[in-house]
Amino acid sequence: MLSKKEIKYIQSSGHKKTRDEEGIFIAEGTKIIQEILTEYPQQLIKLYAVASFYETAGLQPDGEQLIEVSETELERISQLQTPQQAVALMRKPQPASVAETGAEWVIALDAIRDPGNMGTIIRLADWFGITHIICSDDCVDVYNPKVVQASMGSVLRIKVIEGKLDQLLPQCPQPVYAATLQGSKISGISWGTQGTLLIGNESKGVAKDLLPLTAQQISIPSFGAAESLNAAVATGILLWEIKRS
Amino acid sequence: MLSKKEIKYIQSSGHKKTRDEEGIFIAEGTKIIQEILTEYPQQLIKLYAVASFYETAGLQPDGEQLIEVSETELERISQLQTPQQAVALMRKPQPASVAETGAEWVIALDAIRDPGNMGTIIRLADWFGITHIICSDDCVDVYNPKVVQASMGSVLRIKVIEGKLDQLLPQCPQPVYAATLQGSKISGISWGTQGTLLIGNESKGVAKDLLPLTAQQISIPSFGAAESLNAAVATGILLWEIKRS
Repeated sequence: MLSKKEIKYIQSSGHKKTRDEEGIFIAEGTKIIQEILTEYPQQLIKLYAVASFYETAGLQPDGEQLIEVSETELERISQLQTPQQAVALMRKPQPASVAETGAEWVIALDAIRDPGNMGTIIRLADWFGITHIICSDDCVDVYNPKVVQASMGSVLRIKVIEGKLDQLLPQCPQPVYAATLQGSKISGISWGTQGTLLIGNESKGVAKDLLPLTAQQISIPSFGAAESLNAAVATGILLWEIKRS
Repeated sequence: MLSKKEIKYIQSSGHKKTRDEEGIFIAEGTKIIQEILTEYPQQLIKLYAVASFYETAGLQPDGEQLIEVSETELERISQLQTPQQAVALMRKPQPASVAETGAEWVIALDAIRDPGNMGTIIRLADWFGITHIICSDDCVDVYNPKVVQASMGSVLRIKVIEGKLDQLLPQCPQPVYAATLQGSKISGISWGTQGTLLIGNESKGVAKDLLPLTAQQISIPSFGAAESLNAAVATGILLWEIKRS
């Protein structure tokens, strides 16, 4: 049985402050947890799962790292409305640095607030082989449980750098392209082998004071009446346009 | 003051059964409501808004179609966690028919369940000038309040046809392309001026029994490790690839 203290500790990882201070986060969902067990076991602090999960996975709970919990305990430690058999308490990776990005393409995110958008962007970065994402410090935390969930495991593979974009952008792979509604049509651009794609906030777009740090504003041409595109969808289209060439 | 009966009626529009039987739906958010007032007033049954909304909009509540409500009343009739000044009770448009699609591109959706995905797909269809969306009858209802919200007003412009895809696909603009994980790379395809893009369920993809009704399976090439893309992001990339050419 889990102690009250342990339950409180796991629950507290729902807060960014605790995640930062303790260097932890939680991951849920059978698929992501299978991936953790096979590919990222060194990041796993403890796994809390119901008996049927261990049976299906062919694992034996050891009471130390692999803990068996009841359905009721699982409900208490889960951040999901419908808990999915297991909760993994994870160690956050070492912080990445913008200096380690090389001649590649990276994504920089300015104030992306919606956890679903952030998770989706991380997932599609992983699809398109982007290894690093730069996040302004007013983005939603990538270790927010909803982001981890929406990323479908990709948050384990992508390296994230948090900070102030006015300081980080000049160190990122150049040129920096800002996605805006009044930029050059993306179909007319000759993309190089490296660069930074800057995506702005869901309702305000890219902050004006960042534009002087960018080489060019770019836009996805519109053929209809909608005023804008969802930030994650726009990121997907831009990455495809860069990678298809 | 709103009567209990009126409040119950508005609340009941949160259920698909009531929406279908009564031919109504609700729209919330100041932006979409401004759009309704200027462009779709004939679909508005009643507007319920707080005094400050009418002041900003330069409108006078008339107690018949334009109703002034208190903050407390607004909270009771809103489907949002944070109500946004106004709720519009709307008349659903006349059902569209697949026969009215011409030599154009349409989207067909097989069992899209997530309201955020559905709303985002409607919004990007509107961006790319797609006028008709075909939905299998196990898709989330496009007049679900969360879908209306995520569509950012685009649900007012897009015509939706609901039904059984095995019956509808043969009547849709040909050829039908199914988005799958093992199809031909989209960058190698010569798109014509018409066709149907078939997008599958978020976790199961396109139902196997629909594939014989399609001309070709198509895929977005992967450059990384993620196993799949979010359904709305994939739809956005595919529409851009079709429209860019």
